[in-house]
Amino acid sequence: MTALIGRDLLGLADLKPKEIQELLQLATQLKSQQLQLQCNKVLGLLFSKASTRTRVSFSVAMYQLGGQVIDLNPNVTQVSRGEPVQDTARVLDRYLDILAIRTFAQKELETFAHYAKIPVINALTDAEHPCQVLADLLTIQECFGDFTGLTLTYVGDGNNVANSLMLGCALVGMNVRIATPQGYEPDAAIVEQARAIANNQTEVLLTHDPEVAAKCTNVLYTDVWASMGQESEAGDRFPIFQPYQISEQLLSLADPKAIVLHCLPAHRGEEITEEVIEGSQSRVWDQAENRLHAQKALLVSILGAE
Amino acid sequence: MTALIGRDLLGLADLKPKEIQELLQLATQLKSQQLQLQCNKVLGLLFSKASTRTRVSFSVAMYQLGGQVIDLNPNVTQVSRGEPVQDTARVLDRYLDILAIRTFAQKELETFAHYAKIPVINALTDAEHPCQVLADLLTIQECFGDFTGLTLTYVGDGNNVANSLMLGCALVGMNVRIATPQGYEPDAAIVEQARAIANNQTEVLLTHDPEVAAKCTNVLYTDVWASMGQESEAGDRFPIFQPYQISEQLLSLADPKAIVLHCLPAHRGEEITEEVIEGSQSRVWDQAENRLHAQKALLVSILGAE
Amino acid sequence: MTALIGRDLLGLADLKPKEIQELLQLATQLKSQQLQLQCNKVLGLLFSKASTRTRVSFSVAMYQLGGQVIDLNPNVTQVSRGEPVQDTARVLDRYLDILAIRTFAQKELETFAHYAKIPVINALTDAEHPCQVLADLLTIQECFGDFTGLTLTYVGDGNNVANSLMLGCALVGMNVRIATPQGYEPDAAIVEQARAIANNQTEVLLTHDPEVAAKCTNVLYTDVWASMGQESEAGDRFPIFQPYQISEQLLSLADPKAIVLHCLPAHRGEEITEEVIEGSQSRVWDQAENRLHAQKALLVSILGAE
Repeated sequence: MTALIGRDLLGLADLKPKEIQELLQLATQLKSQQLQLQCNKVLGLLFSKASTRTRVSFSVAMYQLGGQVIDLNPNVTQVSRGEPVQDTARVLDRYLDILAIRTFAQKELETFAHYAKIPVINALTDAEHPCQVLADLLTIQECFGDFTGLTLTYVGDGNNVANSLMLGCALVGMNVRIATPQGYEPDAAIVEQARAIANNQTEVLLTHDPEVAAKCTNVLYTDVWASMGQESEAGDRFPIFQPYQISEQLLSLADPKAIVLHCLPAHRGEEITEEVIEGSQSRVWDQAENRLHAQKALLVSILGAE
Repeated sequence: MTALIGRDLLGLADLKPKEIQELLQLATQLKSQQLQLQCNKVLGLLFSKASTRTRVSFSVAMYQLGGQVIDLNPNVTQVSRGEPVQDTARVLDRYLDILAIRTFAQKELETFAHYAKIPVINALTDAEHPCQVLADLLTIQECFGDFTGLTLTYVGDGNNVANSLMLGCALVGMNVRIATPQGYEPDAAIVEQARAIANNQTEVLLTHDPEVAAKCTNVLYTDVWASMGQESEAGDRFPIFQPYQISEQLLSLADPKAIVLHCLPAHRGEEITEEVIEGSQSRVWDQAENRLHAQKALLVSILGAE
Repeated sequence: MTALIGRDLLGLADLKPKEIQELLQLATQLKSQQLQLQCNKVLGLLFSKASTRTRVSFSVAMYQLGGQVIDLNPNVTQVSRGEPVQDTARVLDRYLDILAIRTFAQKELETFAHYAKIPVINALTDAEHPCQVLADLLTIQECFGDFTGLTLTYVGDGNNVANSLMLGCALVGMNVRIATPQGYEPDAAIVEQARAIANNQTEVLLTHDPEVAAKCTNVLYTDVWASMGQESEAGDRFPIFQPYQISEQLLSLADPKAIVLHCLPAHRGEEITEEVIEGSQSRVWDQAENRLHAQKALLVSILGAE
């Protein structure tokens, strides 16, 4: 239960396969209320971008554990007055028990983690979104029981979620296929990292063909085409991304028992159709709820609990 | 004590007369600390407009009950990134225990309540301000003991507060008179609703004559002339509203034991004079405090408590 | 432990020497966890300026005591809609147990304290920063054991921190030297107040010569040259303030066992060099941490605890 005590989670590959399994098991016990834990600590949320799910799910996780949360919106902190990251990190280290950071550059997160002795969690960077993928894996496990033999297909922009999904699938032993337009592939270094983890036991496939990727898959996943900070590119991106939309047509290629995931917010008529997101194969609301349970398990494993 | 368990409060007429009486009694017991309750839940505050009293009074109410609050300022959530209300509602539903919403359109509140299974409280819309009026009724009950035979006079803009006051007075059996300039009358549908509730047992009077309305009244009530979002109209409104100011002259027409209420913030020299708001008949600070006690009773009734 | 029950802290001289000693002793006990106290109250933070250390340290202090905090960011309250201070003060008084205010004019703080019956704490004004100086004194006491015979030298802008340091040193019996450029001296009335407290038992020296001030001193202290709201003056100020930089050269004039303090955020290459702030004599991170412990002692003394 405290296997990760004191550790950072900067990227999903900071976790070993067995550690992910234990986290998912703990999340399941917490969700079913088989297990009730207390963790009377203070979590800081340092978010440079808008957030609903991440902010609320982390906050409620701490509150249900009896802990507290401080929202370090950069608008109201000195971080916006140009204080160097290493100073802010060393000061917050003296006050807080743990810190979740949403920022742009992975490098900035790493600098923060280097200077803060307290555990630091990646709550989304340009490179990764590990907390999202822990919730995704929990949702897949709930639906299918086991990961062995399953395939997850991500269609759309090769962004932070795609990166973390490749790592997550490789770590739990699922095949993963990423279908993106040319020029929008996931990070090459992370592809290599995922393939090294998969070690030829499972597939890590990159393609530009969404139909090949969707064929007989068990999980069909997408995210917005223009992430936060890229909204101005949206007009250019849409025609390029159109073939990667999750429509009923694309979904019909998947396994009949396939589920559809989306990390939200969703733009209907863009990366996903109304019919699919509201359809019987969509698990997006359960997936959103699982942010709460997965992160609660993570917090408990890192901070300890009673 | 848990008569309203799981219910929404979108408008004051969602409550039956007996339910209001029970809420006011519970509020009185909580205020006097005769009764101390615990309610270890999480309230979300989703406010699209500025708020002091509502935000602080709801927060302190939850904290004194041992619960928690998450401030969902739209600036820091995805709601501002154009996520559809029905998606935000279904996600927050999975994390929170109850939600208080301050927004413009009553329709948007209703959509939220439709998609969120958790209870939703109206914390001010263009149509109603039921939590304010529960606090007002508590203040009136504290001053006069009983509502029977009393008259409340509202002078000024026929806004959300006027609407909820009409309903609230009709529900508890008080006469209510609303004096507004022509063209600024309260919502016609709510007037009808209040008259249906009053059922000719008590008066629901609309007039353009503030002196007629104030005559022998027991409670003289006003609100700002230009509500949030209408500030640009203020210059045009002031000459029209001038005769509706609560001055010592207008107050002299009321019953000598009349009290003066204002839901704040007050603009001295506009809708109320310095002399009256600071005078011996003003109960505005007690009224503000009662937001805390009335809302605590509401939260406990909806959420249950130990 | 509850010597200050119900009192305001608007300026450091609101405290008697003995009361400061008791606060520092209590802070030490709380820091070492010799003493664990519960104080189930609600603190309001009303901050008109950015803040990291003050906001987080006050919040964590309350959370560790089992209390709660409401962040009254003026952007989301009616204070920004022009409600008079006396009304906001009287309303918050009905909801909160204690209020910490960061604002510009000391006069506004005093008005707030006059109208709010609950205790009010100065969390930085143009005139004073008493909570910072309580943390500074705690840091000095940790390093040197006793204040008797020690000298603190502040070099730079004669701002609110300089003002409170003069008072704090006089109150605990330390010599204090303030070296500023001409025209940037600390507040004359506070200099007089500090000299009256020192009563010729200890030195309260003003000089324009940083080297004279630094000579054989035990504590070398600085703050940013342009405080919040003065950023536009920064260009003009830098050549004038250059001789007041804490460099290794200036530090070499101090006692060899001298410590360096800075209330942060620091601007390296301006008021302090990289070498000094990261050097072996710097105690700035301990000093920042002590905000938490000093303020926790203050809260407990004012509010009482179990």
